[in-house]
Amino acid sequence: MNLMIGVDLGGTYTKFGLVAEKGELIAENFIETDSSVPYDVFFARLYDEIERLKNRFAASSKMKGIGIGAPSGNYLSGKIENASNLNWPDYIPVAKMMTKLSGLPVAVTNDANAAALGEMKYGIAKGVNNFISLTLGTGLGSGIVINGKLVNGQNGHAGELGHMIAVTNGRACGCGRNGCLETYASAPGLLKTLLDLIDSTETDSVLRDLDHSSITAKDITREAAEGDQLSLDAFDKTGQILGEKLADAVAFLNPALIVLSGGLANSGSLILDPTKKHFEKNLLNIFKGTVSLRLSEMSKKNAAILGAAAMMWEQDLSATNAQYA
Amino acid sequence: MNLMIGVDLGGTYTKFGLVAEKGELIAENFIETDSSVPYDVFFARLYDEIERLKNRFAASSKMKGIGIGAPSGNYLSGKIENASNLNWPDYIPVAKMMTKLSGLPVAVTNDANAAALGEMKYGIAKGVNNFISLTLGTGLGSGIVINGKLVNGQNGHAGELGHMIAVTNGRACGCGRNGCLETYASAPGLLKTLLDLIDSTETDSVLRDLDHSSITAKDITREAAEGDQLSLDAFDKTGQILGEKLADAVAFLNPALIVLSGGLANSGSLILDPTKKHFEKNLLNIFKGTVSLRLSEMSKKNAAILGAAAMMWEQDLSATNAQYA
Repeated sequence: MNLMIGVDLGGTYTKFGLVAEKGELIAENFIETDSSVPYDVFFARLYDEIERLKNRFAASSKMKGIGIGAPSGNYLSGKIENASNLNWPDYIPVAKMMTKLSGLPVAVTNDANAAALGEMKYGIAKGVNNFISLTLGTGLGSGIVINGKLVNGQNGHAGELGHMIAVTNGRACGCGRNGCLETYASAPGLLKTLLDLIDSTETDSVLRDLDHSSITAKDITREAAEGDQLSLDAFDKTGQILGEKLADAVAFLNPALIVLSGGLANSGSLILDPTKKHFEKNLLNIFKGTVSLRLSEMSKKNAAILGAAAMMWEQDLSATNAQYA
Repeated sequence: MNLMIGVDLGGTYTKFGLVAEKGELIAENFIETDSSVPYDVFFARLYDEIERLKNRFAASSKMKGIGIGAPSGNYLSGKIENASNLNWPDYIPVAKMMTKLSGLPVAVTNDANAAALGEMKYGIAKGVNNFISLTLGTGLGSGIVINGKLVNGQNGHAGELGHMIAVTNGRACGCGRNGCLETYASAPGLLKTLLDLIDSTETDSVLRDLDHSSITAKDITREAAEGDQLSLDAFDKTGQILGEKLADAVAFLNPALIVLSGGLANSGSLILDPTKKHFEKNLLNIFKGTVSLRLSEMSKKNAAILGAAAMMWEQDLSATNAQYA
């Protein structure tokens, strides 16, 4: 059996797994992402662990390639670029290094793009040629697929939907500008919206009685599920801003599907329903009825590993490393 | 010599020309777009005229295909769909009909996409794989090129940048919604902005003395070029709204180039300078210095014919008609 290695490199842990073409996760493991050691030491350790996992659980199988998803991974350069949470240099030539270690084709992408590729190969975007995938978590990441191919753009930075301006002169964003979509449509964005509503309305809520600095997005989700009006209002406001911008995204690219995943999407209909309501209200007529807005059905646990592996199953392996030469 | 036929079907005139691969326009002519006769009669007449032109100016050359740009042309269906200014049925199977008449590969697209293809093959987007082309005229049309291919989207309607919401609860748009970009960044949008400024400011302007209903975008361009402050302010406001949305478009797709063409773009630096100023101010850091904003250099007179012909030079002719079968 042929296998791809899917790697999900995060700030704290690096998870990896052996993935068969149909998406079966044969085995998985993780190591700490230790950026106190030089990066070549870390990646050599990672590859050792990958080989160990392979020899233990799939000794007779063949590894065909390694796909790596990382928060600042750039497919075009094969590097992790300016990762704020790693104590390594600004540009880490991950693809080159892992190829040298393994002799295999290696590609790198960011986690949002990996999620999109996972949806295309194993998730609800299977067979859909034009779609947008959004991961709503601490930030808002996105991957765009057109004609069955992920869009990288000129420098590997396409898909920064989280940094489209949603509100003129709105909330301060980590990027230095104001009003970016991800300051509203994310877990911290939902929380901020709730806190704003506590200040600006008289609506009843059990959350008013808590220490405001201790409230989390999970609390809001729990209370909204119980019918807490202020929490429901925070979801509605979040869905409104997201729905309006997604309608713009449809005008731009005419996709058939938009998939939501990530922590905030795990709140299910609490986020989907208001987003859909405002999305459909704002769609241009020619797009009405042509585009689905759906929640991901992939297990959150495996999605990142599967997505990174899907990238390798989707590409021409013989050409993979040439671009980093 | 091999030739493509480029057709620019407008509400009043249908222009057509014989185009060699390098963009040489060998000969051109036009007929009235007469939608008082059945459409098959009109297109038979059009093809007669094309043949006549070809026999007169390029008798020894070979016609290889016909590309047609029309305001509501849909590449994927090969039809003109719901053209508001033609007295024909809602769906006109132009590609099928012209193929039957000519025996040649035929493709149809909308005028904004034809403009993008013209820029890619013959204009300033030559050799650029990722760019966006905007035509600023009565409305705002756009064509998107990713990895060297025009983006059609799922239903042939990608590129409706003119209908991204630029101003919440803003100006009424012909599409039935409010605040669409094209109600600001177009010739009528510039005019409306000037009239708003006449009402809301005290700024001096020679245009105040004119009958307001007679002022045109051309008047504003002329007076702005003479230094009229109110006219310059109208251009600045137009450039601000356009520049901000173009920065969003860059976050979305990471293009290397944005090209402006059309009537409003003919005002040159009057529109380019303020747009560029607000565009660059609003770009996310990672995109600064990676994307050019430029005016088209194609002659307005020929751009539509050349763009329609470029579409045919760019595609696999042997597969062109299969999709409409």
